[in-house]
Amino acid sequence: MVGLNFDFAEIDAIINARSLAIVGASGKPFKFGSLFTASQLAFGFSGPLYLVNPGEREIMGHPCYPDLNSLPEVPDLVYVTIPAHRSLHILRECARLGVKGVVLLAAGFREIGEQGAELEAEAVSIARRGGFRIIGPNCFGIYNPRNRLTLLPGHDFSDSPGEVAFISQSGGFSAHVARMAGDLGIHFSAVVSYGNGADLNEADLLLYFSMDPATRVISGYLEGISDGRRFFAALKEAASHKDVVMWKVGKSESSSRAALSHTGSLSGASSLWEGLFRQCGVIEASGVEELCDVLLALKHLGRRPGKRVLISGGGGGLGAYAGDLAEAEGLEVPLLHGHTEARLREILDYPGSSVGNPLDIGTPLTHLPVFEAAIREAALNPTTDVLVFDLALNFAHGLFGDSGLEEAANILVRIRRDTGKPVVLVLYSRAVGLKDMAVEELSRRMRDRLLSGGVPVYPSMARAMRALSLVNT
Amino acid sequence: MVGLNFDFAEIDAIINARSLAIVGASGKPFKFGSLFTASQLAFGFSGPLYLVNPGEREIMGHPCYPDLNSLPEVPDLVYVTIPAHRSLHILRECARLGVKGVVLLAAGFREIGEQGAELEAEAVSIARRGGFRIIGPNCFGIYNPRNRLTLLPGHDFSDSPGEVAFISQSGGFSAHVARMAGDLGIHFSAVVSYGNGADLNEADLLLYFSMDPATRVISGYLEGISDGRRFFAALKEAASHKDVVMWKVGKSESSSRAALSHTGSLSGASSLWEGLFRQCGVIEASGVEELCDVLLALKHLGRRPGKRVLISGGGGGLGAYAGDLAEAEGLEVPLLHGHTEARLREILDYPGSSVGNPLDIGTPLTHLPVFEAAIREAALNPTTDVLVFDLALNFAHGLFGDSGLEEAANILVRIRRDTGKPVVLVLYSRAVGLKDMAVEELSRRMRDRLLSGGVPVYPSMARAMRALSLVNT
Repeated sequence: MVGLNFDFAEIDAIINARSLAIVGASGKPFKFGSLFTASQLAFGFSGPLYLVNPGEREIMGHPCYPDLNSLPEVPDLVYVTIPAHRSLHILRECARLGVKGVVLLAAGFREIGEQGAELEAEAVSIARRGGFRIIGPNCFGIYNPRNRLTLLPGHDFSDSPGEVAFISQSGGFSAHVARMAGDLGIHFSAVVSYGNGADLNEADLLLYFSMDPATRVISGYLEGISDGRRFFAALKEAASHKDVVMWKVGKSESSSRAALSHTGSLSGASSLWEGLFRQCGVIEASGVEELCDVLLALKHLGRRPGKRVLISGGGGGLGAYAGDLAEAEGLEVPLLHGHTEARLREILDYPGSSVGNPLDIGTPLTHLPVFEAAIREAALNPTTDVLVFDLALNFAHGLFGDSGLEEAANILVRIRRDTGKPVVLVLYSRAVGLKDMAVEELSRRMRDRLLSGGVPVYPSMARAMRALSLVNT
Repeated sequence: MVGLNFDFAEIDAIINARSLAIVGASGKPFKFGSLFTASQLAFGFSGPLYLVNPGEREIMGHPCYPDLNSLPEVPDLVYVTIPAHRSLHILRECARLGVKGVVLLAAGFREIGEQGAELEAEAVSIARRGGFRIIGPNCFGIYNPRNRLTLLPGHDFSDSPGEVAFISQSGGFSAHVARMAGDLGIHFSAVVSYGNGADLNEADLLLYFSMDPATRVISGYLEGISDGRRFFAALKEAASHKDVVMWKVGKSESSSRAALSHTGSLSGASSLWEGLFRQCGVIEASGVEELCDVLLALKHLGRRPGKRVLISGGGGGLGAYAGDLAEAEGLEVPLLHGHTEARLREILDYPGSSVGNPLDIGTPLTHLPVFEAAIREAALNPTTDVLVFDLALNFAHGLFGDSGLEEAANILVRIRRDTGKPVVLVLYSRAVGLKDMAVEELSRRMRDRLLSGGVPVYPSMARAMRALSLVNT
């Protein structure tokens, strides 16, 4: 670690800051300062929170200070939400006071060209001399449910701490991942949007979270890196301690162009990245949905749950389609064990069902005791590692109603608990109109029940198979 | 056509049947007969509908006849919903009476092995001698909004006729596609679930719909084919008249196994199929979602709208990600025309925005007059064929509310109408919890507005790019 020039405590003092000031706090709509202030006030920081703006006496019912110097204490962390060209002045004040860290939200630094790059270099130089570290610029900041720090615009993030870290050059994607994952019961140790990474960058954050005892999974969105050797060493270090999931963009020409104008990053050749990830055992995911899908699988199935899947659901077409998907993703769909097959033939003795792998129960859902017996037997099948069941909610709803479907969710949770075998549910409705909100609501209620019982839920067979494939890498 | 041994009128008499009998109609739950009877009664067949069951006098308030012989007229079409081994007797009655067609719903024919194959051959032989045609067995039947015929379990399908045909070996997928596409404003000339295709098969149906004046797009789900030469000739014929979209499964070993036990089909090597589709100019799609995505693009953008996309939205990460997706799908993300670039620099003069392709408007949505001016200019950019805008609904909702977002949808519809340039919206919310139903409802309301204004809506950038790529093949 010494060779990597890294200090855990420095970063920890920022992420787990115990006091916070917002410079540029505002009540005026459509400004970063006001959006962030409103979010942070609504989320409720766990320690003292000071609003700073020379032009205001009070913001949203909270007192406002004219400058950092007037605060009753020196805050651990200062969020600077004012425009780039006025921020250096604040950084000098931070240096003088001895804060531990600064988050620079504003854009207008390296990503806009030479003039911005000079400003950025000067900001870093002030921090170095002042003995504090910077997150940003051109970022949305930090979300940490433990000290209830939030990033822009995260007033509605989960307040449950968890085991997943997410680091990102994109503020938007930080907020997307934090919000969506939270709704799927995936909770965070912290999410850090670090933008241009002028001072603290991806390598520092990887090293920090690889040592952070609260973090079990490190995930990230990357456009480019500032120091290749240090990043590779940090990634290797992180992946040797934790599960690491990376979403890398900038593989195409237009994407590289976008990355350059976004965070001033040079993104590099895609083959190099893929080789690097493979070498380090890093899971590569693409897009917010796929990243969340992988995090869900890691949470409920763990890393490398096994590639042998048992596919089940109602309808022969489903099995034919799912079999193709599984094998295209490098999964296996082996024949059933003889014993399982014999037992299933006794249970599924009605026309329309078909015993095998895929296992066709004939209709999207069947008489619940028969469903439970068949799926329990299927889960116990010794030639497979994971059971994947497919449920078309709109069809089943007509036959079983809300209560039948909620009981079906309970059955899957029971089977998962009793057998210890990973169970995955593909849950969707083909009724997607404005008039079908009740089915959508039922689907979310079932999903919450299943997730709290250890059964990950995916909205399509394609996404389930892809997630299973990725956690097996 | 003569060489293909095909009679348009024979199939037309079935699909556009003017009178219908259901043999095995029932009021008892959990039986095919009762599910189909209830669906068809609820959907409301446009002509005379006769229920037949020797054990019932009345079903769901409708009179029931003991046999086909007792009906006041000979129906055009007979749905046989009783088990396989009892169906031959009914087929002989159909032959004697001179019906035009029969739909055989029951499983238990070729797909279960030798005994079933004999039963199936005998059924076809009865039909040949009796001068009528069979759809099925092992199928869900026909959905036709023109005569209000529906397939199992389609009581809730759209009643608007349209220009898309879907033919399918899978009953489940027929119902899925009919329901979901209908909710997306894609309407059908007919959907035919033909199961084992013992008599009328994929080739007959392709030829029928390629001649059917109501049909502009022919789509299908295929497991395998019964007669390769005839099928290839029919596919070529169809693709020379209409846009054809095919979803072919059975490319993997387990999938072939599933297809064999599902519809008794031999599915064949995947490379052969891909070559065939390419040669005929057929679009290949996989899965219900992707198929509907393609149908949506064909409806609103047409075939081959052009590969040059202009990507826009709020946030630099988005552009970097979308650029990768576009180029991985064989689309192009060219630089803006100089004139467009200059105009956009005037309009988007605030920090956080970035003019180029991708075009970053800074926040998920901006002040609406600025948004309208910028997106209108972007749509008019002469170096691109299609504008794709990305809108994260949950972020934008906090700033603009329901009315602002509904107005944003109207703006996109206006731009599409005024400029004539294809516009695509990627619309999603990362707020996906049980507590977020209001955003989901707003999203569906906006989608309906956009679809009725000619703007296709996709739930993710990945799906939008894939659909654009596929309609350009």
